[in-house]
Amino acid sequence: ASVDKGVDFANYFCTYAFLYHQKEMLSDRVRMDAYYNAIFQNKHHFQGKAVLDVGTGSGILAIWSAQAGARKVYAVEATKMSEHARTLVAANNLQDVVEVIEGSMEDVTLPEKVDVIISEWMGYFLLRESMFDSVVCARDRWLKPTGVMYPSHARMWMAPIRSGLGDQKMNDYEGAMDDWYSFVKETKTVYGVDMSVLTKPFSEEQKKYYLQTTMWSNLHPHQVIGTAAVVKELDCSTATVNDILEVRSTILSSITGGSTRLCGFGGWFDVHFRGSREDPAQKEIELATAPSMNNGTHWGQQVFLFNPPILVSEGDDLNVSFSMDRSKENHRLMDVELSCEVRQSSGEVLPPVRNRFYVE
Amino acid sequence: ASVDKGVDFANYFCTYAFLYHQKEMLSDRVRMDAYYNAIFQNKHHFQGKAVLDVGTGSGILAIWSAQAGARKVYAVEATKMSEHARTLVAANNLQDVVEVIEGSMEDVTLPEKVDVIISEWMGYFLLRESMFDSVVCARDRWLKPTGVMYPSHARMWMAPIRSGLGDQKMNDYEGAMDDWYSFVKETKTVYGVDMSVLTKPFSEEQKKYYLQTTMWSNLHPHQVIGTAAVVKELDCSTATVNDILEVRSTILSSITGGSTRLCGFGGWFDVHFRGSREDPAQKEIELATAPSMNNGTHWGQQVFLFNPPILVSEGDDLNVSFSMDRSKENHRLMDVELSCEVRQSSGEVLPPVRNRFYVE
Ligand SMILES: Nc1ncnc2c1ncn2[C@@H]1O[C@H](CSCC[C@H](N)C(=O)O)[C@@H](O)[C@H]1O
Ligand SMILES: Nc1ncnc2c1ncn2[C@@H]1O[C@H](CSCC[C@H](N)C(=O)O)[C@@H](O)[C@H]1O
Repeated sequence: ASVDKGVDFANYFCTYAFLYHQKEMLSDRVRMDAYYNAIFQNKHHFQGKAVLDVGTGSGILAIWSAQAGARKVYAVEATKMSEHARTLVAANNLQDVVEVIEGSMEDVTLPEKVDVIISEWMGYFLLRESMFDSVVCARDRWLKPTGVMYPSHARMWMAPIRSGLGDQKMNDYEGAMDDWYSFVKETKTVYGVDMSVLTKPFSEEQKKYYLQTTMWSNLHPHQVIGTAAVVKELDCSTATVNDILEVRSTILSSITGGSTRLCGFGGWFDVHFRGSREDPAQKEIELATAPSMNNGTHWGQQVFLFNPPILVSEGDDLNVSFSMDRSKENHRLMDVELSCEVRQSSGEVLPPVRNRFYVE
Repeated sequence: ASVDKGVDFANYFCTYAFLYHQKEMLSDRVRMDAYYNAIFQNKHHFQGKAVLDVGTGSGILAIWSAQAGARKVYAVEATKMSEHARTLVAANNLQDVVEVIEGSMEDVTLPEKVDVIISEWMGYFLLRESMFDSVVCARDRWLKPTGVMYPSHARMWMAPIRSGLGDQKMNDYEGAMDDWYSFVKETKTVYGVDMSVLTKPFSEEQKKYYLQTTMWSNLHPHQVIGTAAVVKELDCSTATVNDILEVRSTILSSITGGSTRLCGFGGWFDVHFRGSREDPAQKEIELATAPSMNNGTHWGQQVFLFNPPILVSEGDDLNVSFSMDRSKENHRLMDVELSCEVRQSSGEVLPPVRNRFYVE
């Protein structure tokens, strides 16, 4: 299915055209430190080399690559942010090294193949935004066989959590339905039209909004109540778009706290900068977005909540089946099907809970 | 310039596909009462007649038209809301009269010309959303020469106001700039990149967001500090798209309160249901969205703020020049140029203030 570019710009790229949004990413110290260290502690990958920055935004990764000694950096950006990137490159006196190219990565032609592809393509829960597609496209077309990917590896994680958000959302949903019932009554009495036939579709719409849309959250590590498990691993040097179109996984987790409420799951990711097998990093760097007291990121975690929560105790085992597809309406958003079976330490197995979620 | 339908759906129609949003309109008592009374107090316009409802949404106006005795109602809706409208029509036992047609008004073919076109096409400050274009298209193609328009007339209004919102927005803007300066300093110190060259575009972006984007507000009548003036009048039976592409107007207003701060202008609209000259309403109905204590609407008013405010006194005269065009990026949004000259009752004329606004 091909993507309508105009619609994609209206839906997706528009936010990246704001400096305000770029600044949010540029102010994320965990993100910035990881890329900065990955580049400057592995200068051998950059010195004298040709680099491609996929989605350069403000131009920051291209500029660092140049400062680390790259011979040439191609900095591709789809939005008008490219103009600011060009200004920034010149203000930092790197116009002879960094070439900013406005266009979709998919459409751009470079004069040479490159030694390094660097990109910050990760969306919420890694794959939201589907921007890795563009990185794969760039890699297959423009990376030398000996080239390295920055980052080189990525993983999706999930862990059971407790959270008050679920109760809150359930309250919101119930409030919306109470409103609806008064509305139906009033519309019948005052305006002579019976709307009750729309109660079911309205409640489904509201359920989707309040109870099935994943939420951004900056979880406290204490909210994680069991072992975290890897849902998906990607080797950025070899992964194909096909590898990420659908993510299916069965994961196991054990409750580690005392008795508590299992409210749902948190999802996050990490990426690693390891270079390639032939040309490994001198210093491996990790960018992690797990729940953390002091090292939170703008990605936070995505929260998948079940309602009502399940009472669990230390030693209970969770068997979770996870399945994620791209939304039919918008290939940059995800639909998730999650089901969870609790095997209590007594051996008893609770009836599985299952829910459909939308990562929007 | 032709409109990309996919983009228009992504940008505009998407919200109307939610029952939640339709419910907001259906819960606006002022709006509902006006249409209800316009129909049921002028049944002669509907009895035995063919009616076209442009943008039927939930189907409410089509259902009322049928209940008022229409022989046939064509209810056209671009979004999937059409399915709910069809369900609602059947639940109210009107499926033999109301035919719900899913499609853009511009693309739909009817089997006959109609006696009445009814539509609730008004956006913020009347013309936002540019939906009147679709009503004009329907009228020129499907209304009998003797047909009537519901509503039949529309007016845009403006009046000088005082408001605390301007100070607040100026604070927000200054806060954003303070943040920016720390960000620039930190990025230079910690990451070795000088971002100061982006200060000007960032400040322009933030000014546009905080100081030049009009705001929705439910003004208290006391906040109106001078006479209101009509900016534009439309006869819905004859107006063309050309008549609304650009709105240019010079309006006069006199300060009526005591000494106060002129903070900007409020903009709103009213529409009237008067039938046609040959077939007038038995009972004329008005739908007004002016500042009101008890009869506020979901449209509220659009607020255009100047910064800093100007001190004015009773009897001061304002000479306002108003110019509104459609935004180049999105034909459903508006760009406004406003300038205001204060002639004090002493005869002294203050230097004019001028600002560009975006109705987004
Ligand atoms: N297919 C594509 N072609 C070009 N640019 C793309 C793209 N897909 C996403 N982008 C751009 O990639 C950027 C991702 S955000 C990262 C920006 C910058 N590299 C930084 O690390 O701060 C956005 O600016 C977005 O507009
Ligand atoms: N060109 C067009 N063709 C068909 N429907 C349109 C349209 N432009 C706007 N609409 C629809 O018109 C509706 C306007 S909102 C009003 C809904 C309903 N008549 C009521 O009064 O409650 C929306 O549902 C929108 O999707």
